[in-house]
Amino acid sequence: MSKLTPEMLGYVAGFLTTVSFVPQVLQVYRTRTTQGVSTGMLVIFGLGLIAWLWYGVWIDSPPVIVTNSVTLALVSLVLVAKWRWP
Amino acid sequence: MSKLTPEMLGYVAGFLTTVSFVPQVLQVYRTRTTQGVSTGMLVIFGLGLIAWLWYGVWIDSPPVIVTNSVTLALVSLVLVAKWRWP
Repeated sequence: MSKLTPEMLGYVAGFLTTVSFVPQVLQVYRTRTTQGVSTGMLVIFGLGLIAWLWYGVWIDSPPVIVTNSVTLALVSLVLVAKWRWP
Repeated sequence: MSKLTPEMLGYVAGFLTTVSFVPQVLQVYRTRTTQGVSTGMLVIFGLGLIAWLWYGVWIDSPPVIVTNSVTLALVSLVLVAKWRWP
């Protein structure tokens, strides 16, 4: 068994915070209900992800680029749902 | 005017993704409506934040520790609201 390294833990953390938006996307598209989801949260979180992406490109960090791109795509889908079914 | 550095950009990004949960917390407690907010998202996101926190302690990074602690507190408040007003 390999030992846990900080880098591995960072990947696990990034994986979890990214995939967490998958059940959120599935739920809003299945139920067409976005009541309770804050538009402000989605917009500010999306802007934060764009800043993280820019940061990842700047410091040339593939994990930061990849995880934040995927999360941004998922959050955008939730924002579209919020606009269609407010 | 000071020039933008990657570190400053990282702080801006961390600040945005953290404060984004403030409007979410305010909305669920004001409206007592959590419909549309996915429990799976909250739980997996929370686990991811705990992993980030652990990572931050391990690599001794105050910004990672501080931003993820605050986000974890905010997400926990949303989870409590989800449990009270499902």
